[in-house]
Amino acid sequence: MTTPTPPSDEPARLAGTIRPLFSLQSGWSFLLGDHPAVTVIAGVDAQDDCAVLRVHEPLDLVVGSDYVRGAKFYLYERGLLDEFDLGVYLAAANFSDVAAMGALPAALLSVVRYPPDMTDDRFNAVMRGIAAGCSANNALNVGGDIGTAERLILSGSALGIVPRGRSLLRSGAQHGDLVCTTGPTGMAGSALAYFRSVDNNDRSLSQQERDALLRPWRRARAKTVEGRILSASGRVTACIDTSDGLKGALHGIAHASHVGVEIDANVLPVAPLVRRVAEVLGLSVLDLVLGDSVDFELAFTVGASDLQGVRHQFEGAGIGFHVVGKVTSEHEGLTLRLGDGTIQPLPGLPWRNA
Amino acid sequence: MTTPTPPSDEPARLAGTIRPLFSLQSGWSFLLGDHPAVTVIAGVDAQDDCAVLRVHEPLDLVVGSDYVRGAKFYLYERGLLDEFDLGVYLAAANFSDVAAMGALPAALLSVVRYPPDMTDDRFNAVMRGIAAGCSANNALNVGGDIGTAERLILSGSALGIVPRGRSLLRSGAQHGDLVCTTGPTGMAGSALAYFRSVDNNDRSLSQQERDALLRPWRRARAKTVEGRILSASGRVTACIDTSDGLKGALHGIAHASHVGVEIDANVLPVAPLVRRVAEVLGLSVLDLVLGDSVDFELAFTVGASDLQGVRHQFEGAGIGFHVVGKVTSEHEGLTLRLGDGTIQPLPGLPWRNA
Repeated sequence: MTTPTPPSDEPARLAGTIRPLFSLQSGWSFLLGDHPAVTVIAGVDAQDDCAVLRVHEPLDLVVGSDYVRGAKFYLYERGLLDEFDLGVYLAAANFSDVAAMGALPAALLSVVRYPPDMTDDRFNAVMRGIAAGCSANNALNVGGDIGTAERLILSGSALGIVPRGRSLLRSGAQHGDLVCTTGPTGMAGSALAYFRSVDNNDRSLSQQERDALLRPWRRARAKTVEGRILSASGRVTACIDTSDGLKGALHGIAHASHVGVEIDANVLPVAPLVRRVAEVLGLSVLDLVLGDSVDFELAFTVGASDLQGVRHQFEGAGIGFHVVGKVTSEHEGLTLRLGDGTIQPLPGLPWRNA
Repeated sequence: MTTPTPPSDEPARLAGTIRPLFSLQSGWSFLLGDHPAVTVIAGVDAQDDCAVLRVHEPLDLVVGSDYVRGAKFYLYERGLLDEFDLGVYLAAANFSDVAAMGALPAALLSVVRYPPDMTDDRFNAVMRGIAAGCSANNALNVGGDIGTAERLILSGSALGIVPRGRSLLRSGAQHGDLVCTTGPTGMAGSALAYFRSVDNNDRSLSQQERDALLRPWRRARAKTVEGRILSASGRVTACIDTSDGLKGALHGIAHASHVGVEIDANVLPVAPLVRRVAEVLGLSVLDLVLGDSVDFELAFTVGASDLQGVRHQFEGAGIGFHVVGKVTSEHEGLTLRLGDGTIQPLPGLPWRNA
């Protein structure tokens, strides 16, 4: 019988895990176009009161925070996500907000508070996940806060950079613009609906389907390349991420831009697995696609005459997007046009409570 | 009998509390010297995915995060701090790290997660406290995250600005430099020691003394003016805040600078109230002054020939500081010189666990 190794304290974790994992930051530059725009003067490796980032020329910074608990923690507590997944998720959730502004992700500050008995292996997995989530976005975890708490608590703040005046706000959508998304929505919410309804032994979905359904949670990805293209195009009138669900995102644009949105049910992309979950659980496909699913896609608006230009820029990067509707003049009205031409209020739970 | 009003949901709190409290941000500029260095393009009032801050010229940014729970929450749960106090504290704790870098506080991102049954009054008090804490530092709360959690959880990230190359790191202290603090330490820890030892009816301290003891917790203040003067002086070789206690701060400088520190017990400032608590509780004054007390003072080092210059700059702002010891060549050695000239290891609990 062996005695379990007691968890390390903060100084040991800073020295043993965090410094090695986030080393070699100082001197790293982020480019906007050809120019180094921001250089890390003191990162995690410096372990000072704050990180220091040198801004070389005039630019705009975007900053936002995202706290991670709730649904993803339900999946974690069910054993369907592990600590590494949560770390990746924390970075993705924070960089998704940066992407929605059209900015280049640069830095993450991560707050990791853990129960006193969390083993070093599990703590390290959280930090490795955060590192992986930052790497996936070519960003650096430059600091934050670690320590104990009653339960695992993850929070972050992200900083992105964008050329002056090029950030994508929610407020510029105009009557007649087309409404687009960078991908189908509803997968994350479908995963949650499915796993909340069944126990771990349920086999109404195959193992392969279950794995695919968890992928957006386990390997959450912010649409940062898409956001940069949308910003660089200079043609996008409004942009938001779909972390509050597609309906929530459309409401965000409609509210900020004083417009309405009409979604076309015929062209709304639906992932086959979302259809499958709707079928298995007897739910409405549209509720899943439009509801409060944390998908980290981008929803944006663009003038009809500018659509092809943006499409070409996406194609140049080997990616695409979907036109899903249009902006209307009906203030904050969200509607759905069905195949037979009838128009109804947009289904789906709106975002009410995080 | 009246039915209590149910707590508002997030959209209502955003619209009803947060927007009014943090309005008029867009267009606000932060000056470094005579020049607007950073202007808020989109603040909380814009309610976008992120806030947008325009940087007008080359400068250095400092960014850091601080999570608030633990000791201050003990005082909160005892009813000795209220929600407003915690909000002020969150801002101060985050700006203290900015101050320790010698930077001008600009923006706070605040994460406020609360139990579902927290009343609007209490929620509003948290936000008003954060607003007051930002105002006290001429900074803006430009965004963050609100929503529910099992318990009240507060976390923040602060952003500060400083002329290029002028941030104060921990790593430049040199043998022979003088070690200084912006004020006496140990008050916050003494408050905690006292209130942890006694119940609310204890009268070993007067009401006035009890109030004074709680002041550093209830009206926590970051030393941002002091930090700016230290940075502008160009003479400070290392700086850190004392949020991990004075001994922790000295260890931070010694570790980063590969030096030692010798504190002179004869000149170490001691607040009368700290002496009083030591007497009432039978504790060592030096343990309280040097131990893990979250005081938000700054500890810094300066060459002996530069001391008068820095002192004049402080006096010009109507403030002062204390010389408490000197930097030695003994790598990471922390010692105390007593009145009789004997030297012993520096007393006080070091920072081990947050």
